[in-house]
Amino acid sequence: MRIAYVVPGPMSKGPMGLKEMKRREALLNAWAFAGTEVSVIDVMDGPASIESAYEEALCIPATIDVIMRCERDGFDAAIIGCFGDPGLEAARELTTMPVVGPCESSLLLAASLGHKLSVLTIFESMVAGQELLAYRAGVLEKLASVRATGIPVLDLMKNPDQTREKLIETAALCVKQDRADALLFGCMTMSFLDLADEVSSAVGAPAINAGKAALKHAETLVSMGLSHSKTAYPMPAKMRAGQSFEALRVA
Amino acid sequence: MRIAYVVPGPMSKGPMGLKEMKRREALLNAWAFAGTEVSVIDVMDGPASIESAYEEALCIPATIDVIMRCERDGFDAAIIGCFGDPGLEAARELTTMPVVGPCESSLLLAASLGHKLSVLTIFESMVAGQELLAYRAGVLEKLASVRATGIPVLDLMKNPDQTREKLIETAALCVKQDRADALLFGCMTMSFLDLADEVSSAVGAPAINAGKAALKHAETLVSMGLSHSKTAYPMPAKMRAGQSFEALRVA
Amino acid sequence: MRIAYVVPGPMSKGPMGLKEMKRREALLNAWAFAGTEVSVIDVMDGPASIESAYEEALCIPATIDVIMRCERDGFDAAIIGCFGDPGLEAARELTTMPVVGPCESSLLLAASLGHKLSVLTIFESMVAGQELLAYRAGVLEKLASVRATGIPVLDLMKNPDQTREKLIETAALCVKQDRADALLFGCMTMSFLDLADEVSSAVGAPAINAGKAALKHAETLVSMGLSHSKTAYPMPAKMRAGQSFEALRVA
Amino acid sequence: MRIAYVVPGPMSKGPMGLKEMKRREALLNAWAFAGTEVSVIDVMDGPASIESAYEEALCIPATIDVIMRCERDGFDAAIIGCFGDPGLEAARELTTMPVVGPCESSLLLAASLGHKLSVLTIFESMVAGQELLAYRAGVLEKLASVRATGIPVLDLMKNPDQTREKLIETAALCVKQDRADALLFGCMTMSFLDLADEVSSAVGAPAINAGKAALKHAETLVSMGLSHSKTAYPMPAKMRAGQSFEALRVA
Amino acid sequence: MRIAYVVPGPMSKGPMGLKEMKRREALLNAWAFAGTEVSVIDVMDGPASIESAYEEALCIPATIDVIMRCERDGFDAAIIGCFGDPGLEAARELTTMPVVGPCESSLLLAASLGHKLSVLTIFESMVAGQELLAYRAGVLEKLASVRATGIPVLDLMKNPDQTREKLIETAALCVKQDRADALLFGCMTMSFLDLADEVSSAVGAPAINAGKAALKHAETLVSMGLSHSKTAYPMPAKMRAGQSFEALRVA
Amino acid sequence: MRIAYVVPGPMSKGPMGLKEMKRREALLNAWAFAGTEVSVIDVMDGPASIESAYEEALCIPATIDVIMRCERDGFDAAIIGCFGDPGLEAARELTTMPVVGPCESSLLLAASLGHKLSVLTIFESMVAGQELLAYRAGVLEKLASVRATGIPVLDLMKNPDQTREKLIETAALCVKQDRADALLFGCMTMSFLDLADEVSSAVGAPAINAGKAALKHAETLVSMGLSHSKTAYPMPAKMRAGQSFEALRVA
Repeated sequence: MRIAYVVPGPMSKGPMGLKEMKRREALLNAWAFAGTEVSVIDVMDGPASIESAYEEALCIPATIDVIMRCERDGFDAAIIGCFGDPGLEAARELTTMPVVGPCESSLLLAASLGHKLSVLTIFESMVAGQELLAYRAGVLEKLASVRATGIPVLDLMKNPDQTREKLIETAALCVKQDRADALLFGCMTMSFLDLADEVSSAVGAPAINAGKAALKHAETLVSMGLSHSKTAYPMPAKMRAGQSFEALRVA
Repeated sequence: MRIAYVVPGPMSKGPMGLKEMKRREALLNAWAFAGTEVSVIDVMDGPASIESAYEEALCIPATIDVIMRCERDGFDAAIIGCFGDPGLEAARELTTMPVVGPCESSLLLAASLGHKLSVLTIFESMVAGQELLAYRAGVLEKLASVRATGIPVLDLMKNPDQTREKLIETAALCVKQDRADALLFGCMTMSFLDLADEVSSAVGAPAINAGKAALKHAETLVSMGLSHSKTAYPMPAKMRAGQSFEALRVA
Repeated sequence: MRIAYVVPGPMSKGPMGLKEMKRREALLNAWAFAGTEVSVIDVMDGPASIESAYEEALCIPATIDVIMRCERDGFDAAIIGCFGDPGLEAARELTTMPVVGPCESSLLLAASLGHKLSVLTIFESMVAGQELLAYRAGVLEKLASVRATGIPVLDLMKNPDQTREKLIETAALCVKQDRADALLFGCMTMSFLDLADEVSSAVGAPAINAGKAALKHAETLVSMGLSHSKTAYPMPAKMRAGQSFEALRVA
Repeated sequence: MRIAYVVPGPMSKGPMGLKEMKRREALLNAWAFAGTEVSVIDVMDGPASIESAYEEALCIPATIDVIMRCERDGFDAAIIGCFGDPGLEAARELTTMPVVGPCESSLLLAASLGHKLSVLTIFESMVAGQELLAYRAGVLEKLASVRATGIPVLDLMKNPDQTREKLIETAALCVKQDRADALLFGCMTMSFLDLADEVSSAVGAPAINAGKAALKHAETLVSMGLSHSKTAYPMPAKMRAGQSFEALRVA
Repeated sequence: MRIAYVVPGPMSKGPMGLKEMKRREALLNAWAFAGTEVSVIDVMDGPASIESAYEEALCIPATIDVIMRCERDGFDAAIIGCFGDPGLEAARELTTMPVVGPCESSLLLAASLGHKLSVLTIFESMVAGQELLAYRAGVLEKLASVRATGIPVLDLMKNPDQTREKLIETAALCVKQDRADALLFGCMTMSFLDLADEVSSAVGAPAINAGKAALKHAETLVSMGLSHSKTAYPMPAKMRAGQSFEALRVA
Repeated sequence: MRIAYVVPGPMSKGPMGLKEMKRREALLNAWAFAGTEVSVIDVMDGPASIESAYEEALCIPATIDVIMRCERDGFDAAIIGCFGDPGLEAARELTTMPVVGPCESSLLLAASLGHKLSVLTIFESMVAGQELLAYRAGVLEKLASVRATGIPVLDLMKNPDQTREKLIETAALCVKQDRADALLFGCMTMSFLDLADEVSSAVGAPAINAGKAALKHAETLVSMGLSHSKTAYPMPAKMRAGQSFEALRVA
């Protein structure tokens, strides 16, 4: 199967660049089941990183264009490569192939590992947004906490030792003070640091790499012949009434 | 005080046109407290009407640009003129003046009128989205039901008698079968038909005009010197760190 | 419009006296929209202050008599002047004009300012009662905490500096430890100290003056031609069946 | 042990009269464990029956006076003889002996009989009030429904066959449509008709006589040496601070 | 009435032995209402104590055999003598006499004593299980906390002074930090130490002896002629279809 | 990887027999990703089918023995082959390899397909049990309904056309009346009829084969190097304290 991992912003033009995209593509292909081919594709219009509701809103229209093109190009599923799952509902309206978001995928996987989950996020200002995503995934009851590390997305890879240390320290608070049984990396750059095993060993609870979780979720759906429900994410009414996709976009 | 009612799409270019914008502006000014001046402003980039998550996503970036301009131009508050409250959180991040959404305003007002509320919406496909907005407003526990009338936004004004009849019929089901104590018009075009009194008389429960509710909410906040909390809707981190607004927008 | 602010106890005879009533009336009229006239009216039978369920129960029958008289005297709305909203449901059964309670009004307004709210109350023993009121308002999900200042109602005005200091200290705990985005003054005497701006500046989150919030809520309802739903707060069955109001009161 | 069953209104002066009080006293003593003596005492000030929030508010102050007198007179516990549990919280503040309410007692007993419960109430207008009591008891999650029979309290005993028939018909809807596993009689006059076994046989689910449930609850607490928590229902602050009970009552 | 207190394991063969069983039987009979006779019966197949889901699962089949035999032998009700209520649902399927579990009985009784409850349990690893039982009882909303004392079941009686001290210390944290109004002993051996009064005096909140609570619950049900609902706990379908009990047990 | 699918009862000795076990094994291997080998293993002690809490309790001890043996024999994960997930928590306490239950796996997968889910179960008497499992999985908020088909487990394969018809009829009610976006087959024999595509086409919403879902869940966990959290499912305390497994089992 062919899976598109769509980065909702122009990563190839930004500080991480094409090299990081290729590194992530290699990791995803290494994590995949035999027979899966993953392509990492970025979106040319959008912010350098997504750390606010505004930046999230900015990236959605162009990201959905890319996801629609992926479906036309024969991909079997798409992953939205940001832990805020930007545009997940809108993308599902316009596709029939599965579209998954790493936050939803990780939360639902983590829910099977224990009673209470915690998310390691970037900033305090993103805690409420993560709580909303837990509600949308249906597992808010299992959310023990969302704790911020305070390291901006674009700085996570600059000092990996400091990042590792801060992640372990924050994760330990989730386990000890919030009774978390499992941990989520609440940012794709965190996940692609591939520190889940180290963090898990350090704090005594499983930690979920969101890139792996989204990939396995997509592979599971394709393998089972399933996709999101069109009663939940219906094609927009104007299109159901026979108008073209273009008619949706402008008055 | 000066309040901007921002229509998140190019209404002046669409089927309703400038005339309908002016009619709504006149109504809003008639509903306002003495001393309030309301301007209706549309957004030149966006869909003709918003009936899906995709159309909602499409309108947000340009709508926020207009709201930010309104703040710079000295408006005291802005109303996002769509019952899906598109971009409410993102707009609040970038402003200090109050920005209100008619859905949130109506839900919180309705919550003071009785134990259970129902929303009259456009299509079945919009029920789940309205339920999510009730959760975000904090009053999901009071939501009795969301029921669709099945009349597309752009057709609501074409046959007013049929629209009135369908609204009353649907509202009656909310009261009788779902135990609703109060009703919300879940679309601004419904609200600007100004049928709240007729529907209310017909079904024996108060009905809330969302345009009025958002206006009163904005007037209340300005009058009290209040605005949304910046701990809840903080300025994006890059700007707090000293980067310009433009730096947010592109990689 | 004419609004009655009904103090549910004999304030004019108590330690605060007629002077304080007049001061509050002046403040309310200063806060009102143009065209609103507010009268502060106390109830001659009842406790000196309300700090328990028992004192609340004591004040209700006579308070409702006054509210009913206000409606007969042509007032457009009534505010029950105590943050416990004593008798709110019963008063709504017997009136058609809007009757609002400052706690409900403040909670629903605060719900539009952020994700999580905290109430500053008088005693630890009043925390559970405030939580129940948040449930009744429908916004318990948004309640971050209720924290007591420990200063009795009748002492709040004796040492304003100490009161201000204690309010700021308690509010800061709500923001830092409980993640509150907005604060409520959980007592009318606290609100009429008019310290919202000072507390808000000190802790970095909006604080809501409950007197203002109730006033704006009443003005909004009257201005919109709305009142509480009679399906939610119906006239007592004996009266609906044709018996007189007097027949309700004695066997 | 001696238990006071306090009717919160002047039953001896009303249509049911002293004879009905004596009949209820005999039933309660017949239901009691060996060694328990129950006295039925009415309250001379209050409404003929309680079918609204207003009538409930009316009865509370005098009812609490009677309950306090009962404690001084050596009773071991009191039952508030109305299914709305009027004044339960206030009475607990002023007593150390157990005070129980039939609604709370019945709900907590019913919660041990199955997954879902239904309450048979008097009027549609009382449904929301019963739901609030289920929330206060802590078992709202188990409430399947509250259904009204439509027979006023004072008419329940006039045509017992019709009452029985209506109760069975309503209970059957609770079991079949709402999946109730157990039924509560939501009015003391219903309970003292002593129809639990008949209704239960007819619909195939246990039905709880609220008079028996409250009695057993009181006997249990006295027998175990338990009473309500004074952290939950503390003595009013003015009394804790050394003022007399009388000081609470007037300004 | 005759009540069987069934210990779900071979206590007579274990470290506590027959002497402890007889001591518990004497206590239960001393706590009972006049006319109640309690027999303590252990189950010959099962673990020495129950501190995990696995040990709980181990004891259930044989415990249900004993409970069924008790019903055939003319007992009026059975108590499952472990605070995890092992096998409660299964036992109710196979009996018509009441079967009660001390955890459910205690939680529902405690719910009538205050707003928030805490359970004192054995190990941290048992917290999530206790939370699940609170959900099943329907009162999770009232659960303030579950705190572990860290003393294994079989060690509780070895050093009673240390146990008392640890219980008081843990209970005090529940009251002060978690706002508990009432406390539950989350283990039968804790309850049979009969320390409720001491703990209650020390921390200022009622503490519930789970053995007493289960006994009173059973006595209440028998006295009222009630038992669990057979719609909630139906006889297994194969038996309803006419097969024998033995046919259930093997393929 | 090697996965054990453990049937919690003696299927090879029962009416379905070894042939059906082999058919299921072939299906599971056909559904698996390349490189996965699935073995179907039954448990020699237990009921013929599981349709009650009692039958569930009966099968658990022997099923856990088999799962523990599987781990010793080098399997990488185990699936408990019953939709009630019997013994899931206990098995996780005693293993470090992943143990999954088809109900939990299906619920969490379905939660990613839409807003509301429905489970097709065997008997009305199993509805409450399925609701409890949805609570344990953390997704009760998404459960639209559990509806019974009324066909006993052992009859499902006798008349496949009738089973298919009944499943489609029941699924259609879930979609139309309960607003389900996705459907679960609430019994493994239902799932192994492999009718998901037919049911899905007939009702217009995805249907989840629980056997496939559990398999993909197990493959995902093994592939990611994850297993259940040992803080959530700790080894029993006696073993942590150094006693042998055998010491757990008898007094």
